[in-house]
Amino acid sequence: MRHLAGEAHSLPRNRNNLAGYRAEHFLYEAVDGVATITLNRPERKNPLTFDSYAELRDLFRALAYADDVKAVVLAGAGGNFCSGGDVHEIIGPLTKLDMPGLLAFTRMTGDAVKAMRACPQPIVAAVDGICAGAGAILAMASDLRLASTRAKTAFLFARVGLAGCDMGACSILPRLIGQGRAAELLYTGRSMSAEEGERWGFFNRLCAPEELLAEAQALARSLAEGPTFAHGMTKKMLQQEWNMGVDEAIEAEAQAQAICMATNDFHRAYHAFVAKQKPVFEGD
Amino acid sequence: MRHLAGEAHSLPRNRNNLAGYRAEHFLYEAVDGVATITLNRPERKNPLTFDSYAELRDLFRALAYADDVKAVVLAGAGGNFCSGGDVHEIIGPLTKLDMPGLLAFTRMTGDAVKAMRACPQPIVAAVDGICAGAGAILAMASDLRLASTRAKTAFLFARVGLAGCDMGACSILPRLIGQGRAAELLYTGRSMSAEEGERWGFFNRLCAPEELLAEAQALARSLAEGPTFAHGMTKKMLQQEWNMGVDEAIEAEAQAQAICMATNDFHRAYHAFVAKQKPVFEGD
Amino acid sequence: MRHLAGEAHSLPRNRNNLAGYRAEHFLYEAVDGVATITLNRPERKNPLTFDSYAELRDLFRALAYADDVKAVVLAGAGGNFCSGGDVHEIIGPLTKLDMPGLLAFTRMTGDAVKAMRACPQPIVAAVDGICAGAGAILAMASDLRLASTRAKTAFLFARVGLAGCDMGACSILPRLIGQGRAAELLYTGRSMSAEEGERWGFFNRLCAPEELLAEAQALARSLAEGPTFAHGMTKKMLQQEWNMGVDEAIEAEAQAQAICMATNDFHRAYHAFVAKQKPVFEGD
Repeated sequence: MRHLAGEAHSLPRNRNNLAGYRAEHFLYEAVDGVATITLNRPERKNPLTFDSYAELRDLFRALAYADDVKAVVLAGAGGNFCSGGDVHEIIGPLTKLDMPGLLAFTRMTGDAVKAMRACPQPIVAAVDGICAGAGAILAMASDLRLASTRAKTAFLFARVGLAGCDMGACSILPRLIGQGRAAELLYTGRSMSAEEGERWGFFNRLCAPEELLAEAQALARSLAEGPTFAHGMTKKMLQQEWNMGVDEAIEAEAQAQAICMATNDFHRAYHAFVAKQKPVFEGD
Repeated sequence: MRHLAGEAHSLPRNRNNLAGYRAEHFLYEAVDGVATITLNRPERKNPLTFDSYAELRDLFRALAYADDVKAVVLAGAGGNFCSGGDVHEIIGPLTKLDMPGLLAFTRMTGDAVKAMRACPQPIVAAVDGICAGAGAILAMASDLRLASTRAKTAFLFARVGLAGCDMGACSILPRLIGQGRAAELLYTGRSMSAEEGERWGFFNRLCAPEELLAEAQALARSLAEGPTFAHGMTKKMLQQEWNMGVDEAIEAEAQAQAICMATNDFHRAYHAFVAKQKPVFEGD
Repeated sequence: MRHLAGEAHSLPRNRNNLAGYRAEHFLYEAVDGVATITLNRPERKNPLTFDSYAELRDLFRALAYADDVKAVVLAGAGGNFCSGGDVHEIIGPLTKLDMPGLLAFTRMTGDAVKAMRACPQPIVAAVDGICAGAGAILAMASDLRLASTRAKTAFLFARVGLAGCDMGACSILPRLIGQGRAAELLYTGRSMSAEEGERWGFFNRLCAPEELLAEAQALARSLAEGPTFAHGMTKKMLQQEWNMGVDEAIEAEAQAQAICMATNDFHRAYHAFVAKQKPVFEGD
């Protein structure tokens, strides 16, 4: 942030360094400001467990304060994205919980999505193969979604006797693909093909399976090289204005954009333009 | 609902039986938990009258407490869905009403839509031929929409000198097909073709005219055979979260899904999975 | 408006006549109730300046009280729509402003969009060629959008180091094309092709470049010949219901439509129908 009057000062900030984070329940690697999270139990199509849910929640919460990670890619190992909550490690135990225990679980999974929406880094999901249940939710809760042509995405909660209202699906999915298509997927639990997903606006683009991860990382890298402070503001305001009136949203954006106009990145872009150069953004 | 600690009790509930309902102003038949409502004045393309509006409102209100109807199909007789408010039986009399009388009418029609959105049963519209004015609203207010390839859907209020804001259209239609396409249909009153309707997300699927009703009933039956308590929760939350923030929606869903995890249907699904069987849901 | 009991009275109203308005910073011409605003600095692809922003804001505010303009076309001269805020006349000076000055600017541009959304006249954007930055916002803030097949629309704020939250973009764009596609355009600043714009619901229709303006004016004229009081209500309610619950929206529409049922245009339509004639609307 540019100090408006006089010399710029760098105040002490409580920041995390997460480029070197060592994950326990999934793979994690950060290169050039882009962290790639890879769900990695390929023999079971990368199901989630209590532990991996909790670690995802904690990692995305920590990313909110990370200086050295500017964008995130979320992927799965072995040709599938994520098969959702593990039947044996999650569904079974859930059938034995009392109501406070059940609510503790649904709040924990919801907190993972809240953390994904609250961190300033854009999250790019790279969806190959099976993307089901909580896996479909992780894709939905990302900011951008690339898919391979063989991706199959199913909000299959109804198939296991549950409602479609899981981790924000009744709020977020209709805004991505429309209320009628969302209703069909949530009531029936049927698979959305990759082609449907692109046509309906769930996926931003389809890729060949062998190029998917590289494409997602290239997109994330291009965002990481952009004005990342401003990107964080874009993400915040897309969330913040979810249920605001238009006039209130316009005032909120007037304030948010005025803040961005006081950043060095804005000045860098202007001076680069005048000098007929490509701007080099630094995220401050 | 599963009694969380100990033996399950079935409490007395105030329930309606509506499988045997005898309709006055349209056809009504219930088979295997699927009620089919057929607007039936085919010589006039099934217009609505004060009486049929009121009976639809009352029937959908009663369905909220019905135990024996799990899904609804809404159709029209003779190759058309519904031509809207009858010009001679509705429009003419409206031109003679004072303001309290006009408001009583617009509130009555609005109450029919509110009742459609409030009952827990998913409503599948089967749209063939003409679907105009209030008919287009009935299709819009359903949960899922199948159409024949010859369906013509027109929110034609502007053509009779009225505004597009009828029975929730300015709220619901933009969420189905996007704000820009909704604006065009509502300002111009022009017909949306079946192909546009599918492409824009208004219709979930197109069928041959001769297969439309059977397809809609098959879809409704598949929902009626599903976890109907959970389906009712999905419908409730899609409505409830319409203008909630994302974080509030996630908390609301944590509570709603925790309730569904305490149902027998959730346990049935788990045990069926473990036994490698197809679950048989009972809606409790 | 029809006087409900007895003879109609025409009360004195504070109205502007704007058919003869003489614009300073763009071209302006009104024919048969349709005003065409043409951004006119074709050698620079019609950038906006502080002056043209302010005049647009003031003109749209005045249109709210204009009797003689019923619809608006927004276009650009010389094969392009608008290249956005002028780099030399806007971006440069912004880099020298303090925070109150920046906020005064973002509020001024936001007020232009608020005025476009608040005037009762439907605004039809005719988008040819470059439509970038604030230009893309002007198109987005219109009610209907036609484009030529060569239109390139870019919300390129990120390219100049700013956030996508500019003049309501994070609120309005997701409702037009879906949350995921909007996120991509706002984070990356990439161009949306005309074909994408039509497929995603941003553009209502594509035209040949040489027919675009005439098509947009014909659409605007058809709206100006319609029930313009009701059109103003449609526009108001689309805005008003942006973040209302469904039930509240239905009640709001019951009131709004009851008002429209008390207009002469509604009666004209009924009597024309009975006489098998085409109704002639007068907007009262």
